[in-house]
Amino acid sequence: MVKRERIPGIQERFGTAVKFRREKLGLTQEDLAAAAGIHRTYLSDVERGSRNLSLVNIEKLAAALAWKISELFAYVERS
Amino acid sequence: MVKRERIPGIQERFGTAVKFRREKLGLTQEDLAAAAGIHRTYLSDVERGSRNLSLVNIEKLAAALAWKISELFAYVERS
Repeated sequence: MVKRERIPGIQERFGTAVKFRREKLGLTQEDLAAAAGIHRTYLSDVERGSRNLSLVNIEKLAAALAWKISELFAYVERS
Repeated sequence: MVKRERIPGIQERFGTAVKFRREKLGLTQEDLAAAAGIHRTYLSDVERGSRNLSLVNIEKLAAALAWKISELFAYVERS
């Protein structure tokens, strides 16, 4: 039986990108959540890929990560 | 009194980008809504900037517009 590699969905790949950038900037989840004006547990869900977040929250997170939204999604598309 | 130019929010700029691309491809709202698997009235709201749409719906719309999400947001950032 051929084991098909599961392709992570957009929520998971988005969460991976946020975590990558957060850690690159040396931020804790608390730091980033505060900077983005979102709750830490919500951010934790986003990074685990379990949130279908909104356009406005995408904008808040990208700004807090000092990352253009287009660059964030370019990373998502490469992952 | 100095009249400050109102800067459109992300929802409005996103809607402008979707409409631009849809018209460039010569699609009606019905065509694009069907291709994206969303309701036509929902698309009409998105184009008018009155929807805070989700990551999954952003992905659906970008795919139906044959546009990378990163390219779509690059357009939003230029507008």
